[in-house]
Amino acid sequence: MSEVINKSKLAKDTTGVLASLTTGQKNEALLVMADALRREAPAIITANAEDLERGRLNGTPESMLDRLALDVDRINSIAEGLQQIAVLPDPIGDTLESIERPNGLNIQKLRVPIGVIGIIYEARPNVTVDAAGLCLKTGNAVVLRGGSSALSSNRKIVEVLHNALAETSMPPNALQLIEDPNRSSVDEMLKLNGLLDVIIPRGGSSLIQNVVLNATVPVIETGAGICHTYLDATALPEMAQNISLNAKAQRPSVCNSMETLLVHQDYASKYLLSLAEAFREVHVELRGCQQTISLVPWVLPATVEDYATEYNDYILNIRIVSDLEEAMQHIAQYGTKHSECIVTEDQENSTRFLQEVDASAVYHNASTRFTDGFEFGFGAEIGISTQKLHARGPMGLPALTSTKYKIYGTGQIRG
Amino acid sequence: MSEVINKSKLAKDTTGVLASLTTGQKNEALLVMADALRREAPAIITANAEDLERGRLNGTPESMLDRLALDVDRINSIAEGLQQIAVLPDPIGDTLESIERPNGLNIQKLRVPIGVIGIIYEARPNVTVDAAGLCLKTGNAVVLRGGSSALSSNRKIVEVLHNALAETSMPPNALQLIEDPNRSSVDEMLKLNGLLDVIIPRGGSSLIQNVVLNATVPVIETGAGICHTYLDATALPEMAQNISLNAKAQRPSVCNSMETLLVHQDYASKYLLSLAEAFREVHVELRGCQQTISLVPWVLPATVEDYATEYNDYILNIRIVSDLEEAMQHIAQYGTKHSECIVTEDQENSTRFLQEVDASAVYHNASTRFTDGFEFGFGAEIGISTQKLHARGPMGLPALTSTKYKIYGTGQIRG
Repeated sequence: MSEVINKSKLAKDTTGVLASLTTGQKNEALLVMADALRREAPAIITANAEDLERGRLNGTPESMLDRLALDVDRINSIAEGLQQIAVLPDPIGDTLESIERPNGLNIQKLRVPIGVIGIIYEARPNVTVDAAGLCLKTGNAVVLRGGSSALSSNRKIVEVLHNALAETSMPPNALQLIEDPNRSSVDEMLKLNGLLDVIIPRGGSSLIQNVVLNATVPVIETGAGICHTYLDATALPEMAQNISLNAKAQRPSVCNSMETLLVHQDYASKYLLSLAEAFREVHVELRGCQQTISLVPWVLPATVEDYATEYNDYILNIRIVSDLEEAMQHIAQYGTKHSECIVTEDQENSTRFLQEVDASAVYHNASTRFTDGFEFGFGAEIGISTQKLHARGPMGLPALTSTKYKIYGTGQIRG
Repeated sequence: MSEVINKSKLAKDTTGVLASLTTGQKNEALLVMADALRREAPAIITANAEDLERGRLNGTPESMLDRLALDVDRINSIAEGLQQIAVLPDPIGDTLESIERPNGLNIQKLRVPIGVIGIIYEARPNVTVDAAGLCLKTGNAVVLRGGSSALSSNRKIVEVLHNALAETSMPPNALQLIEDPNRSSVDEMLKLNGLLDVIIPRGGSSLIQNVVLNATVPVIETGAGICHTYLDATALPEMAQNISLNAKAQRPSVCNSMETLLVHQDYASKYLLSLAEAFREVHVELRGCQQTISLVPWVLPATVEDYATEYNDYILNIRIVSDLEEAMQHIAQYGTKHSECIVTEDQENSTRFLQEVDASAVYHNASTRFTDGFEFGFGAEIGISTQKLHARGPMGLPALTSTKYKIYGTGQIRG
């Protein structure tokens, strides 16, 4: 039996017990896990050093090594994440609907765990703990398949967590780490219908596309964001500039940052030059349409591919549009249904934009950077769904649950 | 451009308009569709006769031809189905959550259409109208791919509906029928990411498995049901017999009917013989374990494959178990997570069964035949989801919706 099948079966075997744990038991397990991580920080850092050393030998760029690196502060903050999850309300067992039928049947729709959740992700070892915490809090077993570059760290972290769980009511087998670094172990997970109930990919777009296009297990697609900000004719210049700079440059590497700025021609003729200067000051490279270049000479020409690219970098496309309609058409063509913003003082235009633009989050006069489980007040986030089924937008704990109908009868039969 | 791509694009182009239609406009369209079907019944019956004739020439069994056949009564009842959908509450636009953040952001979670729904189904032409009505009521465009045996009927029905929609606010292109009878048109739909938002298969298990295993578009899996009824030691004999007979024999061809009866040994020793006689009277073939055969001599031996088979027929497996635990283990091994029932007077056992058995619907003292959108009071049903994501169990109109966050700001940026 392969590692993937073996560990997925072990995980599945715990789902009955997991579904019956009380909130108190689950929270206690999370707190014990957090304590163990803090206590075992030196051993985790030693294991992490192996990953860093291997990364250096392989010529991994410093920015990637920085994401991979763990120190006491980072481990404390990871442990704190588990404590925060423990404090969140437990959605499992919530009654979502209660139906009394004329024939006397009483039907209760309840939140239950999904079952076994597969998470496929890349370098950062904090995802190992974070994903485990969110899945276990919602009574799900979890099969983790992290990137091979963090294998030593992940292995040590999971060993620490397994030892911690052994002291609690939560079965250690509920948490599984696939250690096989070959891509075949990912391929195997993608086809594991019957053992895995859902796969959530977390990482870059090539990882996500591989999962979406090859999985027969249901997938919750996350991530890709080509987000737009549209400055309408009546946008207030200071607000427009603040929101645009924040959406692009506060943290360009994340999915809810802006890739293309759409500007109404009337706004552009008055304010685009000074806005472009502000972007230049924070070292954002600008690419634009012909009209943009005629107003801001140092802008490079933008191609169709540029409009379709998620830069995740200090690069921004600017396109001048004649009206709201043209802005929405551009978004419909190039957007990834993630987060879209209109800055305007025109109530009618903002209403139309928020109604007609098809995206998980549509903003009036606020930065797209807010599309995030913590910023929405969920207290946690397993990812941002860019699909339309099951969950859309930032996913908190309820996104990790399914439902079940319990029906109470007194001998009813169907006529 | 292929028919599938062309028609799916036409459907997608209507999603903006569809999402903005009022409930009144959608209901009016449904009523105009219903009127047109009644008015054009003779033409539909003529087209249906072509399908029936072709079916007879191909040697289609009479039972299949009966499912395919349309007459005035059936068309009236199909039209009535549309009128019933028109009366149902419209979930689109419902506010599911309203969040005020400390920074002043106002976040609204609203129900929106999913977009374009692909339905892949088999013979019955009533599904054509029913699926179209449910999708359009929820503001979704729909691409239908029915079985080739009903092609003439489906083509005429869609022509009638298109003509009807042309008089309403609903764009006729929101409803598309794929006429290509080759399997390649199904294969093409399964990979149409970006044009189709979800595929819902309706039909036998081979159709559903083909969709689940080959689609890259998200799928809502429906249908397969190996449902069990467990008669506990304290089950009341009359209730147990009524529920068992109803679950098996009231309509064996459907997914919520029972395939295996599990019987506690104490119940079996007292009542199994008379129960088996009752099944014999309604011509149900019985297959059973050795213990069953020792109590009821005419029972045939049941194999492991029998326990794993959805008969959809007048055949029933019977297995005697020593306790609740063994019954739940059998269900965990052979069940398809559809509908499971315990008949018992023991409150503790019913609580455990309803808590621990992993299925979309778990019953205490009522027939599994109630797993149905109409019986649950939803007023409609697009199918019964046997998966755990997005929707589980009978799916009414809300299962055909997604969500969207509208965020209202006053210039907020992320710190």
